[in-house]
Amino acid sequence: MVPGSLIYRNNHKNYGNDISPQLHSHIPANHPRAESLLIRNMLVDGYKRGLVVSEGLIAHGRGEAFDYLLGEKTSNIAHIAIEAASSALMLARYPVISVNGNIAALCAKTVVELSHWIGARIEVNLFYRTLRRERIIKRELKCFGAKEILGMSLKSTAVIPELQSERRRVDPSGIMKADTVLVPLEDGDRTEALVKMGKTVVAIDLNPMSRTARSANITIVDNAIRALPKMIMTVKKLRGLKQEQREEIMKRIVKEFDNPKNLLESLSVMRENLA
Amino acid sequence: MVPGSLIYRNNHKNYGNDISPQLHSHIPANHPRAESLLIRNMLVDGYKRGLVVSEGLIAHGRGEAFDYLLGEKTSNIAHIAIEAASSALMLARYPVISVNGNIAALCAKTVVELSHWIGARIEVNLFYRTLRRERIIKRELKCFGAKEILGMSLKSTAVIPELQSERRRVDPSGIMKADTVLVPLEDGDRTEALVKMGKTVVAIDLNPMSRTARSANITIVDNAIRALPKMIMTVKKLRGLKQEQREEIMKRIVKEFDNPKNLLESLSVMRENLA
Repeated sequence: MVPGSLIYRNNHKNYGNDISPQLHSHIPANHPRAESLLIRNMLVDGYKRGLVVSEGLIAHGRGEAFDYLLGEKTSNIAHIAIEAASSALMLARYPVISVNGNIAALCAKTVVELSHWIGARIEVNLFYRTLRRERIIKRELKCFGAKEILGMSLKSTAVIPELQSERRRVDPSGIMKADTVLVPLEDGDRTEALVKMGKTVVAIDLNPMSRTARSANITIVDNAIRALPKMIMTVKKLRGLKQEQREEIMKRIVKEFDNPKNLLESLSVMRENLA
Repeated sequence: MVPGSLIYRNNHKNYGNDISPQLHSHIPANHPRAESLLIRNMLVDGYKRGLVVSEGLIAHGRGEAFDYLLGEKTSNIAHIAIEAASSALMLARYPVISVNGNIAALCAKTVVELSHWIGARIEVNLFYRTLRRERIIKRELKCFGAKEILGMSLKSTAVIPELQSERRRVDPSGIMKADTVLVPLEDGDRTEALVKMGKTVVAIDLNPMSRTARSANITIVDNAIRALPKMIMTVKKLRGLKQEQREEIMKRIVKEFDNPKNLLESLSVMRENLA
């Protein structure tokens, strides 16, 4: 039982089926950092296929370093945030998952599966936006069973106030309408702007000191490739609760979650690993 | 005066002339992380020009995260390592600087200038080796005044024992013959192998816990883009010492340098920044 967790019971590694075995082939299984190298290969593969941009590769490297400090596993602290995040998304009236290139390359299948379980829309949102990239990412998500992909350029006619880049453009039927937005790998500006618009923002960010981590309502300090399958498991467990208790328990989980405290505790985990 | 430093007096930022102003143009000068973004742009530019590979972009991102933990400045601890490194290279009978794609993209000018000051050969050594990439990197270094570039495929007929990848191939007139090798951004396997061959290895690595950092004789825990110009400054200062004292002082600096202690102190700097 994870300390502080209301429903979590197991902690085994689970990457869903997002990791393709064929990408695994040339990494020796006994390599001390085989998993990290495998994920890196998936991203480089996503780069070659046009989902990921060069800046996304650099961002991934930053994540790798913070994940290394986390011991490359989901901490108990992150499990608590995962429970709060899952509850918030299940309680949402209109949840939306925002997908960028790195997430599409690493977690397309899990994102689609999670969207089914929580009844969320999926919206593509790119900092480096091109019609070609949008199309490739849309195809990737559809390939894993997504019905509808929001956020395509022609339909992204709404604008997030205060933002300057292409990321300000959002879909009126997606993020603009959402009450709760899951932003795995988001930049600080946009997270702040979404919070200012009154939305509940759930972020996944390996850097507990980032502006995204600090401004989101609920921040999961974990690798998205581990956190997303764990969110699905958590959602399934929450759905297994008796209906008359479920909403009350989920509301309590969200209410009791303290993001600044959780971030400080994740920092402590990193500090201990640096010792 | 840097505590513990025998010769260091100033600590101002100095990137040599490696940062091209034209790459600076679209980053707002008041951006809190303008320097980091500027360096990132140089690397992406190097990627577009064929010097850097996708794995190099990810590796750079990892470095960015550790540099963030260092506060993006050269610590006093790193200054001590820079003095020891500069002394060791000046005392060397046959020093060689190993250059990979990222270093060529970020520090070509500084590497060439340092090689002039310490009388070192420059050898290109690539994990992802192609004739085209070698040629582009060679051209980049020559463009900044390098006379001779070692390590081209046709001449790299010597082999580092125990290594499997393309990085095992070295130039018989370069790293194979060297008594002291400067390896900015090296992988752990190769650093260990070079140390086993009896060479003095000077590494620049932002991760004080990496195998490279732990196995090198002298590790500078700093961003290479800051450390290399500081090495040039240090070499100039050492050369300014009276000739009859110089060798003795440099030997003392090298002898008194304690790499494991220095790494632990760099870890402490990071831990404090995480607090």
